[in-house]
This record gives sequence, C-alpha cells and structure tokens, in this order.
Amino acid sequence: MQNQILHFLKKSEGYISGEEISRQLKISRAGIWKNIEELRKEGYDIEAVPHRGYRLASAPDKLFPHEIQFNLKAKILGKEVIHYDSIGSTMDVAFELAMKGSLEGTVVCAENQTKGRGRLGRDWVSPKGKGIYLSIILRPRLTPNEAAQLTLLSAVAVSEAIKKVCGVAASIKWPNDLLINNKKVAGILMESSAQMDNVRFVVLGLGLNVNTALNHLPPNSTSLKQVTGKQISRVHLIQEILQHLEKWYDILKAKGFPPVLVRWKELSSTLGRRVRIVDPSGAIEGEAIGLDAQGGLMIRNESGIAVKRMTGDVVLI
Amino acid sequence: MQNQILHFLKKSEGYISGEEISRQLKISRAGIWKNIEELRKEGYDIEAVPHRGYRLASAPDKLFPHEIQFNLKAKILGKEVIHYDSIGSTMDVAFELAMKGSLEGTVVCAENQTKGRGRLGRDWVSPKGKGIYLSIILRPRLTPNEAAQLTLLSAVAVSEAIKKVCGVAASIKWPNDLLINNKKVAGILMESSAQMDNVRFVVLGLGLNVNTALNHLPPNSTSLKQVTGKQISRVHLIQEILQHLEKWYDILKAKGFPPVLVRWKELSSTLGRRVRIVDPSGAIEGEAIGLDAQGGLMIRNESGIAVKRMTGDVVLI
Repeated sequence: MQNQILHFLKKSEGYISGEEISRQLKISRAGIWKNIEELRKEGYDIEAVPHRGYRLASAPDKLFPHEIQFNLKAKILGKEVIHYDSIGSTMDVAFELAMKGSLEGTVVCAENQTKGRGRLGRDWVSPKGKGIYLSIILRPRLTPNEAAQLTLLSAVAVSEAIKKVCGVAASIKWPNDLLINNKKVAGILMESSAQMDNVRFVVLGLGLNVNTALNHLPPNSTSLKQVTGKQISRVHLIQEILQHLEKWYDILKAKGFPPVLVRWKELSSTLGRRVRIVDPSGAIEGEAIGLDAQGGLMIRNESGIAVKRMTGDVVLI
Repeated sequence: MQNQILHFLKKSEGYISGEEISRQLKISRAGIWKNIEELRKEGYDIEAVPHRGYRLASAPDKLFPHEIQFNLKAKILGKEVIHYDSIGSTMDVAFELAMKGSLEGTVVCAENQTKGRGRLGRDWVSPKGKGIYLSIILRPRLTPNEAAQLTLLSAVAVSEAIKKVCGVAASIKWPNDLLINNKKVAGILMESSAQMDNVRFVVLGLGLNVNTALNHLPPNSTSLKQVTGKQISRVHLIQEILQHLEKWYDILKAKGFPPVLVRWKELSSTLGRRVRIVDPSGAIEGEAIGLDAQGGLMIRNESGIAVKRMTGDVVLI
C-alpha cells in the first residue's frame, strides 16, 4: 500500500487530496496518514496542506526497489530488486539467491558494501550512498567458455548508460574497467556457476563511482560527479544501465556475440594501443590487436606473433 | 574419544582389555563402556568377554567419516568428510560449503540422495546404502576453459579405482560416464564457480552403482555387484577413489593436462568409434577422433571435416 500511495504522489502534478487517494485505493484517511508517516521515515519529503492534500516534495537519494522500478522500461532485469542499506558484498548475496533458484533479472543493490569485491581477489571501495554497487542474476544459455562474453557485454551497456545520463564517454579497458580521462570510474565482475558443458547462472557485478568524492577513492580513480561537476541520480542511472543491459542481452540471444564485439571495439580504449599485460604466466608487451570469440585479448608481441590472454592487468603504454 | 576407541579396536588383532584402553586413552572403565555402547548404536558389532576385553567383530556398511579416513593414504582429499544418512543432493551441500570457504579436499557423502543430480538436469537414482554418492571440493588454479579437464581426470581416477578394488575394466564414455559391458556403472558431474578468468572452486560429483540391485536402476545400467557377483566394500572403494584422484590431481598440477589425456585415451570407449552426438545445435554422426585440450570431443563427420563438441549425448554406433 505504501508503494501504491507513493506511486500516486509521483504521478500527480502538485497536490493530491487525501479523499482522492482514499477513494481510489480504498483505504481510510487514517490509513493514508500512517503510510505517509512511514514514507517520511524512509526520507520522503511529503508536504501535507489542509484542503489541498499531499505533495511529494522530494525523494531520498536511496536505491529503493520501488524507485528503481518506477517507469523502468526493462522487462526482465529489475523485475525483482533487493536493496540493502549495508551488506558485505552484493555478489555473495546474489550468488546465494541464484543457487536457491531466484529468477533471471533479479537485482541486488546496496548503499554500502563492507567487503566489496573486485577482480582477482581485490577490494572494491564502496562509500555509503555515493556509488552504485549492484549484482544481477542472469541465466543465459551459454557454455562456460562463452560466459566471459557477458563481462564485455556489460561494459558496453554501462558505457552507453553513462553516456546517456551524463553525456560523457567512458571507454572500456579490457577486460572489465571503464575509464574516463584514463581514470577508473567503474569495474565489472562476472561470477558464474557452471557444469562441464553449460552455465547454470551468471552473476554480473557492477561497482560504479557516481557521486563519490575523490578522497574516498583509490588512486587513478574518478567519479561521475567529479567529471561532470554535477550530482547524478543513481536511480536514473541504474534504470538506464538495466535497460541497456537488457537490450544487449537480447541482441546476444538473437544474434550471438559478433554485434556485441563490434560495439565493444568502438568503445574500447585498449585495442590498437601498445599494452603491457601481467598475468600468472608472466608479462608480455605488444600491440592489442583484437578480441577472440571468448573475450580473450590478442596481443601481437615483439616478434610479430599473436598471443592470447584471458586474464591479467593491462597497462596502456 | 569414540573414534579413538574404534581406532584401538581396529588396530588390535583379537581382544584388547578395558584396562589397556583405559590406560592408553586416559579414560575411565565406565567411560569406555559408554562409548562402546554408542558405537554399537551406530552398528558396530563389538564383543565384550570378561577377563579378555573387547573385540570388533564387524563394522556397519556405512560411509562414516572415521571409516573413510582410517588408513586413507590421500593427503588432501578426504581430510574433511561430511556424512549424511539422507540428503537432497551432495552437490548442493558441497557447493554451499565451498561458497562458505570449506577447504580443498572436503568430501560430502550420503547413504541416500532424494534429489541426486546428473548431467544436463537429469536425476541420479540413489538407492539407500547401495551406491557411492559423493561430492568433492577442489580449488584448482585453472581458467574456466580448463575446468572441464577435471571431469576427464575424475573418470580416469574412478576407472582405475574400480579396477584396483574389483578387478574389472570400466571404460570411459565421453564426457562423464563409466561403462562396464556397455552398461552405465558410474556418472561424474562437475560444477564450478568461476570469475571471468579464474576458477574459484570446483565440485566434483560421483554417482557409482556399487551393491545396487538391477531392478533399482534405470535401463542400460549395471552395478559392481552385478558384474563381479560380490558385495563390494564402499568404504574401501571410496578410499581408492580418493587416492587415485589425488594422484592424478597432483600430476595435473605438476605436468598439466597432457598425461591425463594420454591415460584417458587408453581407458576410453569412445575414441576410434563411430558415434552419434545429439546436442542443442543438432545431431552429428562421425568418427570420434580425439579430445582437445579443454576436453571437447573431436568428431570427423561424413565430409571428413573435424568438428568439436563440448556437450551432448554420445551414442556408440
């Protein structure tokens, strides 16, 4: 009922009378008042003026499910949203939910992560209420070999969403970082559960520095607020991310990986550059010449030979 | 203390006096009696003769951790064993434990599975106390592409253990079945959790028809008892399986996949045969000519072209 009242307030321009709400939602005036009080506790600024009614003056800067789902155009992604004020890692929660059978498209987000995870066992710094920390459950029909395609697909979707909302270009650094002005603004993580020949589910994780102050971030990082000089609506940005992600996921399902790869290459800051990659098998330097169908990076080394890397840290030289 | 007393009884030929146990384990005679009673409740037949002491006449046919671990020569595999009388699926339990950080080598086994799982979403029929239903947690340093190697490695280890204990040859049908006289005696399942570029953990699952009566099994299946005409010790067989698995796992770590592949080919009933494979991309027929480094099956089709399959059901023609 609380969500329905909120929906009413959002839809109505200006004031809406208690009578109107009462009539349409079949709830007593006292019931309305109680729910309005609850919404206020959540941080909604709701004005109440005698003889005019209620008006939503402002919503809190929180990633509440009903905020993300309000006017969301994605059909599958975000149909279920689970929100935490603070959690160890959204990845762990989403993975557990996926194990227990949660639906494709389920989103787990948090205002704050106490053990935010990055790639290769690293941390993801997750200051409260400033960034987007979310994980999404997908159940693609892919082989384990192909699952890494979803990392690249996500990078494309998040880059496009940032462009749409903030007007800035975020380039993709293989395999999973988004950079603005050569500084890291987002990281994408993929964790999967697979059998020998098929993926059971994939959890995509996103850490995105939105309104984060530079002094709360690691070196060589930036935030969208820092870049644009503006406070960005995290809810709006998540909606665009889910919509772009769903669009590309549908393309992948219909046409396979090639169109994703084409778009990835357009947005990449890695291809065509001289790079140095350090991974467990050692370091190599060369020109990043392309990706293969699994998302591996092809590097032409000093001797002119193309070498493939599936893991490691890329340094642009 | 119960395990220590059991250990004592097992080690001693014939009777051991209560006095002796009391002295060595620093436990009262009443304490010994209480523990012996507990062991009897678990199904151990322990004789007690005045002036001579105790003697272990027989052990129950149960996969108790202390039974599996007694004289087990594997160092890592089986260091931790978790036993259920009945459970939905040992895979699910092991996967949850792995998520929570359980050590490499942890074994989950059950007398009975109510939702035993096979490959491609199928069931594994798991009659109580008759078969081996177990899952093992591994934490290999592999890429997601390479994880399927562990399925093949396990098939090699289980085939060798069956040979050692029962003296019969179980041939491997790609990717995960063991056959005796062309009938299925065991299936191997692998489920992994991975990030884009590295495996976090793998759970290997084994369903093995040991003393199962034919009328409790699906068509085209057999059991070791059926084949050999003898009751087989499940505990002994599990010990051999763990030992062979550890041996091959060590080889994989030291020398990579090639030696495993060589042995797999020796034990295979698939290679060199005309096969028909049905998978989501359709059916193909041809000669099974080899495996690739990821464990995929190479088939030379009618036109003489080599085609690779990572999934599907093989029918030997």
